[in-house]
Amino acid sequence: MLYLVRMDVTLPEGQSPEERAELLAREKAYSQDLQRDGRWKEIWRIVGEYANYSVFDVADHDELHGLLAGLPLFPHMRISVTPLATHPSHI
Amino acid sequence: MLYLVRMDVTLPEGQSPEERAELLAREKAYSQDLQRDGRWKEIWRIVGEYANYSVFDVADHDELHGLLAGLPLFPHMRISVTPLATHPSHI
Amino acid sequence: MLYLVRMDVTLPEGQSPEERAELLAREKAYSQDLQRDGRWKEIWRIVGEYANYSVFDVADHDELHGLLAGLPLFPHMRISVTPLATHPSHI
Amino acid sequence: MLYLVRMDVTLPEGQSPEERAELLAREKAYSQDLQRDGRWKEIWRIVGEYANYSVFDVADHDELHGLLAGLPLFPHMRISVTPLATHPSHI
Amino acid sequence: MLYLVRMDVTLPEGQSPEERAELLAREKAYSQDLQRDGRWKEIWRIVGEYANYSVFDVADHDELHGLLAGLPLFPHMRISVTPLATHPSHI
Amino acid sequence: MLYLVRMDVTLPEGQSPEERAELLAREKAYSQDLQRDGRWKEIWRIVGEYANYSVFDVADHDELHGLLAGLPLFPHMRISVTPLATHPSHI
Amino acid sequence: MLYLVRMDVTLPEGQSPEERAELLAREKAYSQDLQRDGRWKEIWRIVGEYANYSVFDVADHDELHGLLAGLPLFPHMRISVTPLATHPSHI
Amino acid sequence: MLYLVRMDVTLPEGQSPEERAELLAREKAYSQDLQRDGRWKEIWRIVGEYANYSVFDVADHDELHGLLAGLPLFPHMRISVTPLATHPSHI
Amino acid sequence: MLYLVRMDVTLPEGQSPEERAELLAREKAYSQDLQRDGRWKEIWRIVGEYANYSVFDVADHDELHGLLAGLPLFPHMRISVTPLATHPSHI
Amino acid sequence: MLYLVRMDVTLPEGQSPEERAELLAREKAYSQDLQRDGRWKEIWRIVGEYANYSVFDVADHDELHGLLAGLPLFPHMRISVTPLATHPSHI
Repeated sequence: MLYLVRMDVTLPEGQSPEERAELLAREKAYSQDLQRDGRWKEIWRIVGEYANYSVFDVADHDELHGLLAGLPLFPHMRISVTPLATHPSHI
Repeated sequence: MLYLVRMDVTLPEGQSPEERAELLAREKAYSQDLQRDGRWKEIWRIVGEYANYSVFDVADHDELHGLLAGLPLFPHMRISVTPLATHPSHI
Repeated sequence: MLYLVRMDVTLPEGQSPEERAELLAREKAYSQDLQRDGRWKEIWRIVGEYANYSVFDVADHDELHGLLAGLPLFPHMRISVTPLATHPSHI
Repeated sequence: MLYLVRMDVTLPEGQSPEERAELLAREKAYSQDLQRDGRWKEIWRIVGEYANYSVFDVADHDELHGLLAGLPLFPHMRISVTPLATHPSHI
Repeated sequence: MLYLVRMDVTLPEGQSPEERAELLAREKAYSQDLQRDGRWKEIWRIVGEYANYSVFDVADHDELHGLLAGLPLFPHMRISVTPLATHPSHI
Repeated sequence: MLYLVRMDVTLPEGQSPEERAELLAREKAYSQDLQRDGRWKEIWRIVGEYANYSVFDVADHDELHGLLAGLPLFPHMRISVTPLATHPSHI
Repeated sequence: MLYLVRMDVTLPEGQSPEERAELLAREKAYSQDLQRDGRWKEIWRIVGEYANYSVFDVADHDELHGLLAGLPLFPHMRISVTPLATHPSHI
Repeated sequence: MLYLVRMDVTLPEGQSPEERAELLAREKAYSQDLQRDGRWKEIWRIVGEYANYSVFDVADHDELHGLLAGLPLFPHMRISVTPLATHPSHI
Repeated sequence: MLYLVRMDVTLPEGQSPEERAELLAREKAYSQDLQRDGRWKEIWRIVGEYANYSVFDVADHDELHGLLAGLPLFPHMRISVTPLATHPSHI
Repeated sequence: MLYLVRMDVTLPEGQSPEERAELLAREKAYSQDLQRDGRWKEIWRIVGEYANYSVFDVADHDELHGLLAGLPLFPHMRISVTPLATHPSHI
């Protein structure tokens, strides 16, 4: 089942460069693992913003919430989720 | 170049069922032609709404505006466009 | 899978009382059939508004969109859908 | 009497892990006590957000405000309350 | 139990002066009956707007919804309801 | 002259419990003095929020602003003021 | 007592040019009478909009509401009113 | 002096194709005259919308309002105006 | 040329009383100088808020921006500017 | 390809005057380099705000995002991007 997810990031102030780099590296690895296993189907940068639009393909709401709540950046994100259905014009 | 496009439809009142069916058939054919040639990459129904999220892959802004302005339902839609860039975590 | 759904109704002007009564009777029957089969789990009136909050329990997004798009009042409603996951404090 | 309640949590920065764990444990116990006595009828996680939708069944406004103001997380929540009436299509 | 209610009126176009006068007279009588029996405790005009803030004192949500849905102007109003609790500084 | 006033409180972080208790005690005394002299006519808690709706009865705008700006919690409040006129249906 | 008032006009469709001219002439005369007697102290056009910001100087809320509700364009306006107090830096 | 102007168009329903074509031709001629004399410095289509962003260079507010209010489409537009000053980084 | 300006102040936390008093005294002197030379034509307190509506009369946008950016409180204000034109009903 | 970009700046608190001056000097140099090479076509100050409207002319979305993300002030800005197409009335 597909969901469109928008994530807006606000990094915490007061991190050292090392803490920040380590946090972002964990986020990237987490995202790429999910892209590789097919559940994080798409990820695009929103031009000019520290934000992305993504498409997830998971079994159900609980699985999606688990994946999102596990993001290393989850405490620093505002997330909104839109469930997507099949469009009748889709070929 | 990719764009996320949201379209919200409000059909005009006072159409006959035949006019409406003809309008929607033209919209569907128009959409499917663009899906087949690869420029309308994705189209999803937003659950519970007469609306869709779509992804377009076109050469530039003018081409996208031309495609959208040519939609048979264009006069009955509210459209918003978000330009999408490559995400650094994308694999 | 659970979804919270808010529906706001704006009845079309210019209907005869008979047309309106027939439309509302069909809506009520449609809703009660779905309540009886367990998919429309909850329905509450929002105090002071021609609107409701409902909870649906269906297999997936497509099933929910099909149910909502089939509502006799669908063309006269603004609907918003929130996917609900299990809460960790739920007993 | 029923109320739909939405709670959005923003945890305070600067807590130690122990303080946070203790705060969340108290919140969970508080919620589960109220679920067990039937006043906190429903609680769902909003997918992708540190937020919940809940349904309370209490005698009156004062009782509800007392319960909400007593939440260990109350100082860290934005809460909105919608009174729910019986829907005429409810079976 | 107390509720603050805001009502914003948009009168339908195309009424004859007689229809309008009759509708407004019924609304006024309805409001004054409820003021006399104590359930419509307060009514104030919002300066410069065709709108009012009112305070209702009723037994429960269903009674309030019944009163509001029975307003002759109900189909022409946007209404929002805020439940009011006792304030700890109230004397 | 009547005004509806909504006050939303956000207490400053980093106060000691004694500072906070002293601040809230001054706020309460200030409010109760004004309630006793009849200028702060009504005060209600908004259910679930650290906020109130109040009605003031004062001679003019300057008097109201003076009263509000003198609130011990004024630096920690967002306030909005709505002037109220006599409603023609008022009995 | 001073009030800042914003008025946004949406003229009704379907008026004849004569009806419209007559309506606008009445509005202008009404405004100019109030400007001459000093109660409509200021009136400015908001650049690019069919809207104005005005300052009224009247005895109380009821007088202001009476003046605004008497505007020939009142049924075709959205009006918002802000009460203005003396500023401590005013010379 | 420069102003950024956003114009959103909603064409009236019920026009004949000839009326519409004539209206749009007058709008285009009006715009092009002002572009040629240098006062309508820039005009861009907002992708996917029946709307434009424009830059005007005029002597003062009254001249700009006169130009905008004279647009053949003015009664069918929502317009917002932002005054632009010299930026200190401008070369 | 006239502009309506709304200024909303949020004072920085952590100032000493002396710093704050000095800052506010500079703001007041700055405002009164501009009122005396006629460019800051009007200043009103918005009732209940740490905010003002003002009217400026200056030669052009750059002059206005220079005056506003020079306010001692400028770093602590949210400001919005509306250009005002002559109203055709103005006497 | 053209994009309208709005940037709103909120400088971090707690910088020394030297840090701030150095940051702003780098921002200015960065902006002027891009203005000189023609990609940052226009930059205007929004009157009364610490914000600008700019027009960029770049090859594609990725180039624009790279330029914006490289701004020394990027971590302290809220940015919104609007793609601009050719307007049919443009001469």
